[in-house]
Parts: sequence; structure tokens; C-alpha cells
Amino acid sequence: MAVYTDVSTEEAEEFLAQYDIGTLKSLSGITGGVENSNFMLHTSQATFILTLFEKRVASADLPFFLGLMEHLNVRGVICPLPVKNNMGESLSALAGRPATIITFLDGLEIRKIERDHCFEVGKVLGAFHNNSQDFTLSRQNSLELKDWRPLFMRSQARADEVQEGLSSLILQELDFLEKHMPQDLPKGVIHADLFTDNVFFLQNRLSGIIDFYFACNDMLVYDLAICLNAWCFETPTSFNYARGASMIAGYQSVRPLSVQEKAALPLLCRGSALRFLLTRLFDWLNVPKGAIVRPKDPLEYLNKLRFHQHVKSAGEYGL
Amino acid sequence: MAVYTDVSTEEAEEFLAQYDIGTLKSLSGITGGVENSNFMLHTSQATFILTLFEKRVASADLPFFLGLMEHLNVRGVICPLPVKNNMGESLSALAGRPATIITFLDGLEIRKIERDHCFEVGKVLGAFHNNSQDFTLSRQNSLELKDWRPLFMRSQARADEVQEGLSSLILQELDFLEKHMPQDLPKGVIHADLFTDNVFFLQNRLSGIIDFYFACNDMLVYDLAICLNAWCFETPTSFNYARGASMIAGYQSVRPLSVQEKAALPLLCRGSALRFLLTRLFDWLNVPKGAIVRPKDPLEYLNKLRFHQHVKSAGEYGL
Repeated sequence: MAVYTDVSTEEAEEFLAQYDIGTLKSLSGITGGVENSNFMLHTSQATFILTLFEKRVASADLPFFLGLMEHLNVRGVICPLPVKNNMGESLSALAGRPATIITFLDGLEIRKIERDHCFEVGKVLGAFHNNSQDFTLSRQNSLELKDWRPLFMRSQARADEVQEGLSSLILQELDFLEKHMPQDLPKGVIHADLFTDNVFFLQNRLSGIIDFYFACNDMLVYDLAICLNAWCFETPTSFNYARGASMIAGYQSVRPLSVQEKAALPLLCRGSALRFLLTRLFDWLNVPKGAIVRPKDPLEYLNKLRFHQHVKSAGEYGL
Repeated sequence: MAVYTDVSTEEAEEFLAQYDIGTLKSLSGITGGVENSNFMLHTSQATFILTLFEKRVASADLPFFLGLMEHLNVRGVICPLPVKNNMGESLSALAGRPATIITFLDGLEIRKIERDHCFEVGKVLGAFHNNSQDFTLSRQNSLELKDWRPLFMRSQARADEVQEGLSSLILQELDFLEKHMPQDLPKGVIHADLFTDNVFFLQNRLSGIIDFYFACNDMLVYDLAICLNAWCFETPTSFNYARGASMIAGYQSVRPLSVQEKAALPLLCRGSALRFLLTRLFDWLNVPKGAIVRPKDPLEYLNKLRFHQHVKSAGEYGL
């Protein structure tokens, strides 16, 4: 439920006067997004999204996020385009917050995931990776392998409240991944959060991807592992082989995986499952007072992790 | 923050198939409205609002609300028009809730209220009253004079927590109004909630009124008293005479007040101030667990009530 900061008509009109995108016709707070305040903005020319960045997003990272959207958009990866104001800037301030206007994308989240959707997600992820190769800014992944143990330390004392034995299972997995998780694979800019709510479809064709606020530099195939976890399980205990095969085929249709990347996929799926288990566990145990957003179930990712622990090769994902 | 019920793309597409308003292009939960779940709906033809009615709105009242919007819209009072589906119905069901699609109105809430805004609000209120005279459905006001004392009984024990002496002040005012508040004035359908967030402006011209879910049959001039309270105070202790004069002039430009209505205005302003003081007091003392919407300050309406207690005639409002 994302409107943390109120914007008056008068403030919005003053802000919009710095842009050449028409006059203000309506402004509605929208519930999408968790970290920032988002508004649907209708002008006499078109529909846009106005975003006010709240404290949880580091303002030093904003040029990376906005620059990446622009970089990919002009290279044909359909995503929101940050709109430049009359000073040529895509980032300014509104109501005491860093603020930006981005183009609005038609499209809807898919709930009933089919193989063809997975192919398109794989394909757009490959295009994302190919086209960001020459993007000059970079941002470190703040949730990479070395960050997982310190993150878990903040949940460890209460982890077994969520499930008996969870703490020791996570510690064993941390030990294992710290030893075995590959580090030397092709790197680049990854989306890092391409879940179903960040991919839009229209008539079963992918119409765009959004929410670049976890994007960072990391191993490219780790991004594919995140998507396999997010899109290809029928239930948290049951991986859908056909979906996995379709997603990997879509990815390889634009960016073929190396032998090393293929071999690493099971370990990266484990790593990705552990990463989302750890953040969800932390959020589950630390619901802010007065929050009405129910945190996501960490056990979903525990079950996914358990599945990957028994995978012997990437062939089991449909490769 | 109003999305209580989740609607999937698949459900929305199935619902939209019953209408002849184009194909679904996007669906975004919006934060406007407190009682219902509201979504901004873009189709290949236009923008609409999809509303799912939650429990707090009695479904028996829905034909009144939707019928009233349609009745007024076709008579030139700019408000959302309920869209009929292929069975000719403007009300059906979605995600287990009564649901409706209404047209989307351009426009924005005004924060910096000027005299001219007040003139337009008065004028649209008069047009609302004139044009609803031949509306055949009716709905009793569930917050009329006789309901105020039972409502206060539910807050009385804790009223002095909000302000020392509040309980005895309210009891005295109830005694007074139950004796003196006029009842025999011209009646009809009133909006009953035409606050600033329910009136849209574009370039300082009124572009529409929304949120008919408190509309009911009551004394017409009581509706004007509600608007004088909502729009014409500079601060809760300082009534802006110029705004009041402008609003009353706007109202009378389309529906002149009778001598009796003019004389009754101070008492109806007191009544209206007490009614909003009582509901805000109740909400203030009964914040639902986990709510993130801060209730509105009851003391604002206590101060307005105190102002009206010293008004001798409607001339003090600018009449």
C-alpha cells in the first residue's frame, strides 16, 4: 500500500510545470510498490507514474536505477522511461523527497502462469542482460552471498518460531553455499527481482517489465535462478519442468549459457532460494507496528530450497 | 488506503467480458476512498474506476447510489456514470463482492480554497438538489438527528480523554438541538459528504463530484450547512466570510433559499458540526487494530461547533 507521502494538487502542478508533458488532469495514489510512494498521473498528453522515493531507497542509487531504465528502454527492452524535465534531468524533488516521472506501461500481472509466459520472461531477461553490457554505471548487490549470514544473525534467535529446526537448516545451508557457490561466472547488470508482479502481459504477450529498484551487478545466471524460483514452481514443493524448460529456452534464444553457467544453475537456485528465505524470514519476524501489508511466507522459499538441495544437474530444470 | 479485496487479471478479464468497453489494458489499486476497494481500469477505449463494495456499504443501498449517479449525470451534473454491462445492469459481482464500473473523471482536489471554488461548489450543490427532485428511489439518512445521541452513547465514557469537558458539552448540544433543530424544511436527495476530496477541479473550474455513498433524503439546506463547514473555515476557529458568501451566492444562483431555510442555517450548521464531531470522535476512539489510516481529528469539528454556537443569523455566513 504505497503512498507514504501526500502530494497536493498545487505541489503537483508546480512540479509538472518543470516538464513538457501537458497539464495535470488527475493524480491518484496507487497501491503498487512497497518501498516508494507511487501516483498515477494523467496529463493532457498521456498517463505517467509519479514516484517519490522514500528513505528505504538510497538516493545515491537513483541515477543507477533511472539511467538503467533509460539505457534499456532505448535499446528495445520495454520498461518505463524516466521523463526528463526542462533542465534535462529525470530526477528532482517533490514534497521533500527525490521524485521522478516515468512513462506508464499498459499490461497486467499474470496469475495463471503458462509455459509461453515463462518463455517470454526468459527471453526478456536475456535481452536485459545483453543490452545492459555497455551500461556504464554499476551498483553492488547489497544482498549477495557474503551478506546472507549477517542477515540471518538478526533472525536466528527466533527462526525456530517459524518452523522447528529452521535455524540449523539455514546454518548448514550457509556453510555449504559459502564453500560451494560459484563466484566466477559472467557478470553484468541483473534485475534481481523479476517476480510475477514486475512483468506485464497483454493478450499473453509480454508488454513490459518494471521495478528496477533491486537491480545491481552480479552473475547473470543468478538472475535466471531467481526467475526459475519465482515463475516455475507449481506449488512450493513441486517444480514444473515444462515451465523451467520453456524459460531456459527463452533465455538461451537470446543469450546462450556457457557450460560453466549451466553446471552452476542448481547451486545458484539454492542460493537464490536461501536469499529470499532470509529476507522473508526477517520481514516475517519484524512486521512494523501498524502495518497492514502481510509479510510474504518465508516457508514458501524453504520448500523451494529443499527441492533444489536434491537437484543433481540443470537437466532437472528442463535444460 | 482502499484495496481490501484482491482482483486477479483473470478475474478482471472475465468481468470485463460482460461489458462493451474494450479490452483490459491495465488495472491498478488506488488509495482513494475508505469504505470500498477501488481500481483504476484502463481499457482499449477509456479509463474507468472499478469499485468492489465491502461490507460497510449495505448492498440494499447500491441501486440508490448507482441510480442517483446515472440520474444526475444525464441531467448535466458532472459525476461518474455507472456503466451498464451486456445484460443492461450496472451492478454485478466480482471476487465475491458487489461490483460496478463507473466512468473516470478528470480533475483534482483543491487544497488552497478560494472564493471562486466555493461559488462553484454552492452552484453544483444547488444543481444536485434541483435535478434529484424527480429521482424516484429514496434512502433514509442513517446519521440524522435521532441517531446522534445513541451514537454518542458509544463514545461517552471516553470522550473526556479527547478533551476535558467534551462529554458535557456534547450532551448540552444534543439537548439543545433535539429541542430546536428545524425539521420541516424542503427535503430531497442530498450528497451529505461533499468535502474537498469529493469535488474535482481543472484549471480552477469544477470538473465533477464523486463519492455518492452517503447520499440520502434529508433537508436540502442541511447539505449546504455541511459544505459551509467543510469549505469555508480558514482554520477550525475562523470562518471565512468571503468564502461563505460566495458559496451561498453560488447555491442561490440555481436554487434560491426560502425565508425559513435562511433562518435555519445557523442551527443546521451546528447540527452538521455535531454530526461530524460525533462520527470523528467515535472513529478516533475506535481505530481498528493494524489500521494505517490515521482517523480525522474530532476537535476540528468541536471548534467549528463552538463558532456556530455564537452565530446569531445566517448573515454571519455571508448571506
